[in-house]
Amino acid sequence: MTDQTNTHEFLPFLDALADAAAAAALPLFRSSLAVANKLEGGHFDPVTAADQGAERAMRDLIAAHFPDHGILGEEFANEASDSPYLWVLDPIDGTRSFISGLPIWGTLIGLEYLGRPVLGMMAQPFTAERFVGDSKSAWYRGPGGERPLKTRSCTSLSDAVLMTTSPRIFPERESALYDRVEKQVRLPRYGADCYAYAMLASGHVDLVIEAGLKPYDIVALIPLIEGAGGIVTTWDGGPAASGGNIVASGDARMHENVLRMLAG
Amino acid sequence: MTDQTNTHEFLPFLDALADAAAAAALPLFRSSLAVANKLEGGHFDPVTAADQGAERAMRDLIAAHFPDHGILGEEFANEASDSPYLWVLDPIDGTRSFISGLPIWGTLIGLEYLGRPVLGMMAQPFTAERFVGDSKSAWYRGPGGERPLKTRSCTSLSDAVLMTTSPRIFPERESALYDRVEKQVRLPRYGADCYAYAMLASGHVDLVIEAGLKPYDIVALIPLIEGAGGIVTTWDGGPAASGGNIVASGDARMHENVLRMLAG
Repeated sequence: MTDQTNTHEFLPFLDALADAAAAAALPLFRSSLAVANKLEGGHFDPVTAADQGAERAMRDLIAAHFPDHGILGEEFANEASDSPYLWVLDPIDGTRSFISGLPIWGTLIGLEYLGRPVLGMMAQPFTAERFVGDSKSAWYRGPGGERPLKTRSCTSLSDAVLMTTSPRIFPERESALYDRVEKQVRLPRYGADCYAYAMLASGHVDLVIEAGLKPYDIVALIPLIEGAGGIVTTWDGGPAASGGNIVASGDARMHENVLRMLAG
Repeated sequence: MTDQTNTHEFLPFLDALADAAAAAALPLFRSSLAVANKLEGGHFDPVTAADQGAERAMRDLIAAHFPDHGILGEEFANEASDSPYLWVLDPIDGTRSFISGLPIWGTLIGLEYLGRPVLGMMAQPFTAERFVGDSKSAWYRGPGGERPLKTRSCTSLSDAVLMTTSPRIFPERESALYDRVEKQVRLPRYGADCYAYAMLASGHVDLVIEAGLKPYDIVALIPLIEGAGGIVTTWDGGPAASGGNIVASGDARMHENVLRMLAG
């Protein structure tokens, strides 16, 4: 069994992982290496280099400090383990933002205990922001200092701010269902990836709806969203940790309503 | 006549305007006043308050220092004038980003001389970034220091990163033409407003295509884009300063190609 005290022992290590990922990725953000290299006929891709460098740096730290823990990451093979602890890593979530210079990508660091996400961080190194949660509480550290995170109440779609990566990511059936929701909200907003969930946890966004997520796209965000008072599930109301079609709401009443609409 | 030296005399004043706008807008960014107020039955809207407060602060500074200059802004009536100088202001470009907590909105400050944009700034106060241009050169000041801005060369759509506010902003005819371009690019990316043009000037994005812009959405960005080596016109190749359907390219050869596609 793990309790909150146990989980919090890992918090300084989450910061160390985020620092290591930032040291690898930030120098490649807004670099013009891709262009320079292309002109010379090479194929160096800064986002791939940043992705792999940041995940390698985090894996090395985990291997050094917790050699028995498992690792599931975007870039390299799973590290299977008999330990109840599994680290779930996405070094750069929001590669489209990274590629185009927008500071709204993030490094996702999640920790599962016996298959359940218990600790998660979204770190944005350019803005020096970290959003952290343990499923019971969530907090923020950024240029303006540190503060707790709390979702806002919002029961009507006509008041809601909705985010998704792109209205064009959905397969045909899902697209029609998504559009039904989008048509009713106050404001739809595209292209924020993990930053969208961080803004939901911060009480600025009411709904995030996406399709086709991988576990490493969402595991780190679950303790953050739940810790801030929100709810995140698959479109059919199942646990979100395996990825797939995901919906997150700041308000449980909104969530129920939207799940009904997405069920078709 | 104005020459570059003359124009550069206004640069410290552009910074003063951006500082004044930031002082009014930044405290309202990510504020939860809207929700608090709504629960009490009020109608306070932080983005409107930030928009109006920031533009008022800039207008007051202009009136104090250059009482004969004209002012065209988003929020208040035009200040007509006999002066050859016209300030063109958008206190918060990217209100959807502002509302949803994303740090990719900006304050746009443009200066026209005899109807021609000669100086422009995009300022993002949360990230402490300023992008400035005078049509002959362009430069950046941010957390990592100061550096010149230069668009990148890109002649093939299959290599291009394209940005637009939303693929759903276009009227029907424009939508079909826009889609022809989007289908051919390497990466389309949505929702960055003025930040998209700043990333084009920085050499991270190759194309920005939008529809229905107002003069205050684009005037400040013209000296920035042109100063960095890019080109910005209406879809039919006319001057961009009056707004409308706008396309900006980092590479003039790309621009020619895209204008042909957007002509239908």
